[in-house]
Amino acid sequence: YGKSKVRLVQLTRCDDRHDLRDLTVAIRFQGQYDESYTAGDNSGVLPTDTMKNTVYALAAASPPAQPETFGLTLARHFLDRNLRLDRVGIDLTERAWARIRSSGREDPHAFVGRGPDARVARVLVDRTTTTVSGGVADLLILKSSRSAFAGFIRDDLTTLPETADRILATSLTATWRYGPGDVDFGLAWGIVRQTLLESFAAHDSASVQHTMYAMGEAVLARVPDVVDIHLVMPNKHHLPVDLSPFELENRNEIFVATDEPFGLIEATIAR
Amino acid sequence: YGKSKVRLVQLTRCDDRHDLRDLTVAIRFQGQYDESYTAGDNSGVLPTDTMKNTVYALAAASPPAQPETFGLTLARHFLDRNLRLDRVGIDLTERAWARIRSSGREDPHAFVGRGPDARVARVLVDRTTTTVSGGVADLLILKSSRSAFAGFIRDDLTTLPETADRILATSLTATWRYGPGDVDFGLAWGIVRQTLLESFAAHDSASVQHTMYAMGEAVLARVPDVVDIHLVMPNKHHLPVDLSPFELENRNEIFVATDEPFGLIEATIAR
Amino acid sequence: YGKSKVRLVQLTRCDDRHDLRDLTVAIRFQGQYDESYTAGDNSGVLPTDTMKNTVYALAAASPPAQPETFGLTLARHFLDRNLRLDRVGIDLTERAWARIRSSGREDPHAFVGRGPDARVARVLVDRTTTTVSGGVADLLILKSSRSAFAGFIRDDLTTLPETADRILATSLTATWRYGPGDVDFGLAWGIVRQTLLESFAAHDSASVQHTMYAMGEAVLARVPDVVDIHLVMPNKHHLPVDLSPFELENRNEIFVATDEPFGLIEATIAR
Amino acid sequence: YGKSKVRLVQLTRCDDRHDLRDLTVAIRFQGQYDESYTAGDNSGVLPTDTMKNTVYALAAASPPAQPETFGLTLARHFLDRNLRLDRVGIDLTERAWARIRSSGREDPHAFVGRGPDARVARVLVDRTTTTVSGGVADLLILKSSRSAFAGFIRDDLTTLPETADRILATSLTATWRYGPGDVDFGLAWGIVRQTLLESFAAHDSASVQHTMYAMGEAVLARVPDVVDIHLVMPNKHHLPVDLSPFELENRNEIFVATDEPFGLIEATIAR
Repeated sequence: YGKSKVRLVQLTRCDDRHDLRDLTVAIRFQGQYDESYTAGDNSGVLPTDTMKNTVYALAAASPPAQPETFGLTLARHFLDRNLRLDRVGIDLTERAWARIRSSGREDPHAFVGRGPDARVARVLVDRTTTTVSGGVADLLILKSSRSAFAGFIRDDLTTLPETADRILATSLTATWRYGPGDVDFGLAWGIVRQTLLESFAAHDSASVQHTMYAMGEAVLARVPDVVDIHLVMPNKHHLPVDLSPFELENRNEIFVATDEPFGLIEATIAR
Repeated sequence: YGKSKVRLVQLTRCDDRHDLRDLTVAIRFQGQYDESYTAGDNSGVLPTDTMKNTVYALAAASPPAQPETFGLTLARHFLDRNLRLDRVGIDLTERAWARIRSSGREDPHAFVGRGPDARVARVLVDRTTTTVSGGVADLLILKSSRSAFAGFIRDDLTTLPETADRILATSLTATWRYGPGDVDFGLAWGIVRQTLLESFAAHDSASVQHTMYAMGEAVLARVPDVVDIHLVMPNKHHLPVDLSPFELENRNEIFVATDEPFGLIEATIAR
Repeated sequence: YGKSKVRLVQLTRCDDRHDLRDLTVAIRFQGQYDESYTAGDNSGVLPTDTMKNTVYALAAASPPAQPETFGLTLARHFLDRNLRLDRVGIDLTERAWARIRSSGREDPHAFVGRGPDARVARVLVDRTTTTVSGGVADLLILKSSRSAFAGFIRDDLTTLPETADRILATSLTATWRYGPGDVDFGLAWGIVRQTLLESFAAHDSASVQHTMYAMGEAVLARVPDVVDIHLVMPNKHHLPVDLSPFELENRNEIFVATDEPFGLIEATIAR
Repeated sequence: YGKSKVRLVQLTRCDDRHDLRDLTVAIRFQGQYDESYTAGDNSGVLPTDTMKNTVYALAAASPPAQPETFGLTLARHFLDRNLRLDRVGIDLTERAWARIRSSGREDPHAFVGRGPDARVARVLVDRTTTTVSGGVADLLILKSSRSAFAGFIRDDLTTLPETADRILATSLTATWRYGPGDVDFGLAWGIVRQTLLESFAAHDSASVQHTMYAMGEAVLARVPDVVDIHLVMPNKHHLPVDLSPFELENRNEIFVATDEPFGLIEATIAR
């Protein structure tokens, strides 16, 4: 059991500017809570309302940190104080805000939301192990060159034509686990995200699967702290419009973007 | 990899009326598809577009059936024809339509959508085992009596007052696995859903956890075909409004319904 | 300016049962508030937070009433107390809850949410006039017989085939204005909704427009208190799937339901 | 009547790069279509499916243009060919894509989605007049300094404390009408958006209303082509968390972001 959608906006008041952190936190407890289910005995139950309070109190008590680090602080707080608790999971989603620029310089107190992608982090801690993951959710990417899909199985229910040149578009969600050493989570996150973008752009794609694997490989090659990476790439189909009834040629330029159905491709790439 | 959000509406034209089935289907393949990821070799890949075609073709080729049965038909079709496929999962969501009633009788060809809850089914088949699950998603339920939450841990971050009388509201999602015998899936589904509603209504609740367990127990006691049941019950908090600044008393009658944050309670209850 | 998404759940504790009212309220003020915009002078501004408080306080102070009546109470309260206020609009959306039935009888304290359609009401009051509207939002309706679309303009960009037999499906939103007399809003609402359903089912449809008009006419004919009615009917296309590549015939039985693009048809039918 | 959610992705294949345009188009017709409603006579009705085809065919037939210009092309096409049509409205929403940067240079064929804000355009044309509007939707902005709300009406239902220092956050939707002269729509759009951001950041805010007016004024002062501007600014409240039960002080640094209820402030500022 736990608490979801705890929304925290934290302002750090520096001398000449404000820093902004915008997190949504979810907390999950696993442990020896059987009696609360079977007998309605709440004597070992920390209310989810207290979990929420803890997010705000710990945020106030410590300087702002990376989402992963704040997640670790929360997880250890709960484990230290709740003996019945075997395992705690903290999920954090950070909305990005950029500073508004006026006359070429950044305003110190005004922000504009960036997206649609968000930074995510996940911390799983039990009495013996700690796992920290970073991630990115809903990163829209599209390539209009070097993307094919051909040579697949054709059975009597296959109508899809082969293509050597299609739009490949997805809303990428990637989550990667960090190794046990000291990690600069902010730095690593930026490098992984950039590596995902660059490898997607550079790849000569035979399929979503093919590109996904290349992206995972590129991250593992570039960021030693990453142990493995899980990628989810829904294939957001862009279908060429048949213009022949209008005596127009579609030189692979006019597409209809569709939301459903969509291909859903997933993989975990590990060292 | 697979295909999601394949939307099928199937009409059965009986002599004196039409029957309607409205399904959204998701298909997931797991198997020996490594080369498609690592080498861009699609020679063993069934396109997700063909998966979509298969849904429509198999629906047309066989009489309408329960979602679980249609899922089994799909799963076996794919396993029979794809040797690289180790395991296939089919998720089905059925939107409910009731007949429009006019002058006390049901119209044979006109329907009104019911909800917000939906019937769901999941079929997982590999080369040796078959698992069939039924479920209900997003069933909104609320009780305004016999619901308490007290006796919980109070630490220095706890501010929640104890209560002997609160509104308990949730959007229930439940999934249950059926045993290996012959099951009348439609009949069983109706009985499980009704049992969930009745046990929720009847329970003297000490917490969400407590009621959730009672609901699972009731299902296991009433429906022998159910092997286990997983319940997810977000606690949709209804907070009493403080009317004292207005010199009004709130006799536990005026509440603000909140969407976030919410408690998230889950359990699996097995025999 | 105003306040939106004020969520009120009101419980009425009768001797042997609870009644439940679940409203979401939006309030809009129009009036002589120029200085608040141009000069930042808030001396005439009622905070939107006070609007919210007013919803809860007036709900507590009076017995539960129809949404239209509660909207009138709110509107008059604001007009009486705010001299700068020229015109106030109150929008109310009611979520429907049915009682859970156990062993054939209704539970007095447990409820199940019904939908997806909601009852809506709108009250517009200024210093001289009062307009009260009822409505229904998101009522999913579908008919699989007596629905055609043919005889339309064919230009060089038209590819749509004519059809004498198609599925007609929509998510109806209807709003109707009541005349100045005393109206039993609950009774009228039920009759209008039922009339919309029946006339939709019974109509021999040549188009969405055609059926929409018939539905509006039926309401005006049946409910004298209704002055006019506005209908919005997005055409949720159900496209027959081409099964010919699979050597199967589609006897108008297998459809793909689509969300976009959709036809959007609107009309106001007045006496 | 009309067609909504027509999704068009258009690729322009230049020698050394691709340009991408991603539009969602809605078309509304008003005119002499009474017989289609009253008599089911479709002989004057252009199918909404043809409207959709027209979007794709006209996009293919002409070089890519600003959304406003494409909207004008569509509107005039429809008016020229449909004598019953009195007035046509075209709404266009453009999703922004930036080029992916690799090693400091822009990839010519790979893109990353930007948001959450979108560029919008609206064209309204009848037999005598043409109105063109530009806009921005869902632009998230937040300022943490120079934002107060005080001096408002206090009645017996007011509990809101006055504040001299609060977070002001909104999801801005602005629509502005252009005058009749030749306008460089792309250039003007960028200047208006930047002016909205800068004036929001710079303003010494006494209320949402106050800042909204200043933003509109700044646009009118800077962009002569703009005739008037309509702003919608939901007040996305950020409430300071009461940390006193935990013996912590909240120096206006820890906030809970809330989605509902929200203040809804609107204004039209004209020359």
